[in-house]
Amino acid sequence: MDIATRVYNHRWKMDPIVRSLIDTDFYKLLMCQLVFTNHPQTQVTFSLINRATHIPLAHLIDEGELREQLDHVRALSLSRGESTFLRGNTFYGKRQMFRPDFMEWFENFRLPPYHLERVGDQYELTFEGTWCEAMLWEIPALAVLMELRSRAVLGRMKRFELQVLYARAMTRVWEKIEQLQGLDALRIADFGTRRRHSYLWQDWCVQAMMEGLGTGFAGTSNCLIAMRREVEAIGTNAHELPMVYAALAKTDAELAHSPYQVLADWQAEHSGNLRIILPDTFGTEGFLRRAPDWLSDWTGIRIDSGDPATGAEIAIRWWQDRGQDPREKLVIFSDGLDVDKIQDLHARFVGRVKISFGWGTLLTNDFRNLAPDDGLAPFSLVCKAVSANGRATVKLSDNPHKAMGPKDEIARYKRVFDVGPQVAQDVVV
Amino acid sequence: MDIATRVYNHRWKMDPIVRSLIDTDFYKLLMCQLVFTNHPQTQVTFSLINRATHIPLAHLIDEGELREQLDHVRALSLSRGESTFLRGNTFYGKRQMFRPDFMEWFENFRLPPYHLERVGDQYELTFEGTWCEAMLWEIPALAVLMELRSRAVLGRMKRFELQVLYARAMTRVWEKIEQLQGLDALRIADFGTRRRHSYLWQDWCVQAMMEGLGTGFAGTSNCLIAMRREVEAIGTNAHELPMVYAALAKTDAELAHSPYQVLADWQAEHSGNLRIILPDTFGTEGFLRRAPDWLSDWTGIRIDSGDPATGAEIAIRWWQDRGQDPREKLVIFSDGLDVDKIQDLHARFVGRVKISFGWGTLLTNDFRNLAPDDGLAPFSLVCKAVSANGRATVKLSDNPHKAMGPKDEIARYKRVFDVGPQVAQDVVV
Repeated sequence: MDIATRVYNHRWKMDPIVRSLIDTDFYKLLMCQLVFTNHPQTQVTFSLINRATHIPLAHLIDEGELREQLDHVRALSLSRGESTFLRGNTFYGKRQMFRPDFMEWFENFRLPPYHLERVGDQYELTFEGTWCEAMLWEIPALAVLMELRSRAVLGRMKRFELQVLYARAMTRVWEKIEQLQGLDALRIADFGTRRRHSYLWQDWCVQAMMEGLGTGFAGTSNCLIAMRREVEAIGTNAHELPMVYAALAKTDAELAHSPYQVLADWQAEHSGNLRIILPDTFGTEGFLRRAPDWLSDWTGIRIDSGDPATGAEIAIRWWQDRGQDPREKLVIFSDGLDVDKIQDLHARFVGRVKISFGWGTLLTNDFRNLAPDDGLAPFSLVCKAVSANGRATVKLSDNPHKAMGPKDEIARYKRVFDVGPQVAQDVVV
Repeated sequence: MDIATRVYNHRWKMDPIVRSLIDTDFYKLLMCQLVFTNHPQTQVTFSLINRATHIPLAHLIDEGELREQLDHVRALSLSRGESTFLRGNTFYGKRQMFRPDFMEWFENFRLPPYHLERVGDQYELTFEGTWCEAMLWEIPALAVLMELRSRAVLGRMKRFELQVLYARAMTRVWEKIEQLQGLDALRIADFGTRRRHSYLWQDWCVQAMMEGLGTGFAGTSNCLIAMRREVEAIGTNAHELPMVYAALAKTDAELAHSPYQVLADWQAEHSGNLRIILPDTFGTEGFLRRAPDWLSDWTGIRIDSGDPATGAEIAIRWWQDRGQDPREKLVIFSDGLDVDKIQDLHARFVGRVKISFGWGTLLTNDFRNLAPDDGLAPFSLVCKAVSANGRATVKLSDNPHKAMGPKDEIARYKRVFDVGPQVAQDVVV
């Protein structure tokens, strides 16, 4: 290495984890534009939730370092090249996906303040602001916490231990990719930004998928990596839309209608492969049963909780009931996937529907059993919209372990959305 | 990378495999000084022998590239720092191991010409000169051929395939090291220069052993790596000494005495841990039976062919017969070792003798089953003294598969050295 580079690098007071505002999931930007248009004044609070309470984040991660990283994220703004990419690139076959008014806003955007407090072994970390401001904290906050935890564990390892750790992790990812190579007409995307081991590791995984899967690799949800590696940016919409819309509802009738209002707003903006239904926020079965007919014209559905095969069968029956041909429809699996599950789902549904996979944590953070005391195993950390204009949000999902919100509100939602008994599934990651 | 460095690197017309005259086994230099003193005028021919005839080296390796690499080796001379190291370093506890007259000669040394011819799928490669000149070709010639073969196979692999190849190889070496960590009072050295996958890979293996084994790692046979990594340079003497001494013998009586003459000359120069008997050149049992009493005073023995446990038991009985305490003696195992064999031998002999291991090919070139068609598996390539002053050399060893020399001479040697029936062992590497 040349001397100047070395000296320059050593002048950094820290090694920033998130170095770009578009080091985030692409669908956040799609949703942000929708929110910018339809709910510019709504105040939303996002909050970090560590479902893995056995992982004492506040023990592992120094508060000062965490603040430094979060402060660094707050100092970021969209670079000229990033702006050009968002304005000029074709996303999902569409030019100018992002409207000029939204881009102008985004070019001047800075993330709002955060509130950080140590409570016992955990951190309380919340973000308040208008919805389109606060929502952009979700992914960088998760990435910062995940990577600081990785660094805390890695910091105790010796040089060759580290080399071999990554050698093992690379071998593991590659063997998964080799296992996927045999699957006919595979379409799989990286959805692993939020729980990645680190930025560089996610970037490695994406490149390995590019080489190993060729056209079977559909792209990455990470907007920055999509730009740098010149692959498709992938993603549609998430639970936060129906959760916030529902929280804003003033009556039970408005509440019952809110998930469809989300999709009506979405449809006004997006077509084609972006018209993907995410049906499970308040229970998939009831959602589909009560759905307006126009929704069955949409391109596909994303299965993100509950037993995925069951979810897909429900969708297939629903399309058939509505006179649609399931073979023309797209099913995207995105919940807790790993290669065996991908193989099973592929074998079961290939030829019956179009299928695609959004592979997350077990792509970009499968460090299970690779570090002492399994210290690098991924864990279930989320950052969710917990209130909107002062009203608590609720999520039911198709897995009661993933439900969130105040108890009485959960009961009300279950009644309004007519959710019957649900099967609990372990939340692995 | 800075621009100048990149431009500079791209000006190299090739990537040299051997970049230093001391990128060789340390014992070559010890032996070279002995030859320089005792046989300065003897003419010796070394010849490459590919025991693995199924590996078509001349198909795999371009003759032009091979010549470029060999020409580069011929252009090397001892650098000032290397000379300072050899003159000033302590080897085996001794200062000035290399005498000033030898160092003066070595400082002006260049390797003699080579003779290269393609014959079918193989190369005939020979080196002629005075013994001390020609003998220094052995290790660089082997290293060049092994690494050119590696490069030929690696050249067909894609970028992430390559990364994962090395990830797997690193993991494999590390897991071997972890397996060795449990062994009480382990002493193990790298003997893998001659059949290494590549220089950088050997260097990696040495560093991994340093970190993983600590004081259990005794050092490396590679003089350059020993210098750069500041570890012990390890090695004593090899079969070429008795082979050439024997070839020079004028009568059967001189022939029978020749292996002991080697050790008498050695003893005049070296003491302590360098007094290691290599007994198998013409059969271990007869060699020890006829050995002069002073030889039992030597520090230890190196077992390099035949069944290693049998060889060690023979040595133990011999010491006992000569009134020596085997617990004070050192047994060095160095033939075709891998971790399981090391563990077995350790378990069997720990406490009965001092033991040490010289771990070669399966340390520095265990790429078995890692490349398509197993194209990177190590194979048995040697470079041997085949004649001295025009007379063919002979090696019997304790494994008839390792015997070499003209048939009638082998028969004569078997008679003179009274070699009985031998058990054939597969030569893995």
